Amino acid sequence: MEETVFEHLQQCLKRLPGLGHRSAERIALHLLVEKREAGSNLLDSLSRAMEGVGSCERCGNLAEGSLCPICEDSTRDPALLCIVESVPDLRSMERSGAFRGRYHVLNGKLSPIHGVHPEDLNLDSLRRRLDEGGIEEIILALSNDIEGEATCHYLQEELLAPYALGLSRIGFGLPSGGGIPYADATTLRSALEGRREFR
Amino acid sequence: MEETVFEHLQQCLKRLPGLGHRSAERIALHLLVEKREAGSNLLDSLSRAMEGVGSCERCGNLAEGSLCPICEDSTRDPALLCIVESVPDLRSMERSGAFRGRYHVLNGKLSPIHGVHPEDLNLDSLRRRLDEGGIEEIILALSNDIEGEATCHYLQEELLAPYALGLSRIGFGLPSGGGIPYADATTLRSALEGRREFR
Repeated sequence: MEETVFEHLQQCLKRLPGLGHRSAERIALHLLVEKREAGSNLLDSLSRAMEGVGSCERCGNLAEGSLCPICEDSTRDPALLCIVESVPDLRSMERSGAFRGRYHVLNGKLSPIHGVHPEDLNLDSLRRRLDEGGIEEIILALSNDIEGEATCHYLQEELLAPYALGLSRIGFGLPSGGGIPYADATTLRSALEGRREFR
Repeated sequence: MEETVFEHLQQCLKRLPGLGHRSAERIALHLLVEKREAGSNLLDSLSRAMEGVGSCERCGNLAEGSLCPICEDSTRDPALLCIVESVPDLRSMERSGAFRGRYHVLNGKLSPIHGVHPEDLNLDSLRRRLDEGGIEEIILALSNDIEGEATCHYLQEELLAPYALGLSRIGFGLPSGGGIPYADATTLRSALEGRREFR
């Protein structure tokens, strides 16, 4: 069977995260055969999203205008800034409901092996925000791995040092509901290093 | 966060087979943030597929013209017709490489509970093909369940009876590589009913 247009759609779908050959085929058939209106809806929705959704020029979050809803929300604390690696990470933080400040999305973390250097990160706009003033405390919400660690050190030494800021990194240790027997060695090491006085 | 365009895309993706809330979000972010060109490619590809891919007017398979590649392939045996429920089923049969005739896609199987009646199936065009002549043998490749069974009986009694045709139904039993201990009771029952003389 030579179905170039169909096969091309399947290939495009297969390259999406989490989809393999069979699930891409299943979705392509769903869109083109079983539910043509799902195909039209997706086409329309993707077209509007590709056109209408961009990056917040201040923080790098998804935005449908020049600023994202969080930067535009005057109830969020402008003195508190949480630095995250990516938009998905920002959305995870938001789902927790635990943070009421604003964000800055780095769009990656330093990783010389993968060719990610400081100039690849969203740092100029971070420097600009700090120069504008008003930020008093920074929380580093980067991942608990070598690259996250390196990025935190770089930020502290090369970028944040000149400013008088509170600086912290989110805690590491046992996940909520996680018992000791289920934690791997590195998590337990993090948990020990992250121990806090308890009375 | 109110991101109507983004959320709409996520909802569209979530309705696709096999995708949940989190995988839909992951794909939407991939398309809009991490890999904009994957977003453009998918948009372009889906647009061309929605426009260019339809149903074969003879057999119901995917077609980019009026006939599908199988109906147009003159090396396929025109006397042998395999009746399948759906395009995915047809594609599975093709992957097996075991069938060199042509197909007819019913677009479903009879299921009064789910409101699928004979008039919902692709039967008029099947009758037309039989009337045109040239078909000598029919293989029913419908699923091994009550609806598949009912559909086979309906086809035989109400549609195929007047024609002088060889008629068979694909075999049921142990899957290739499947041992007895791993087969469920219904499969073993199918396998016993489908036993064949062995010398």
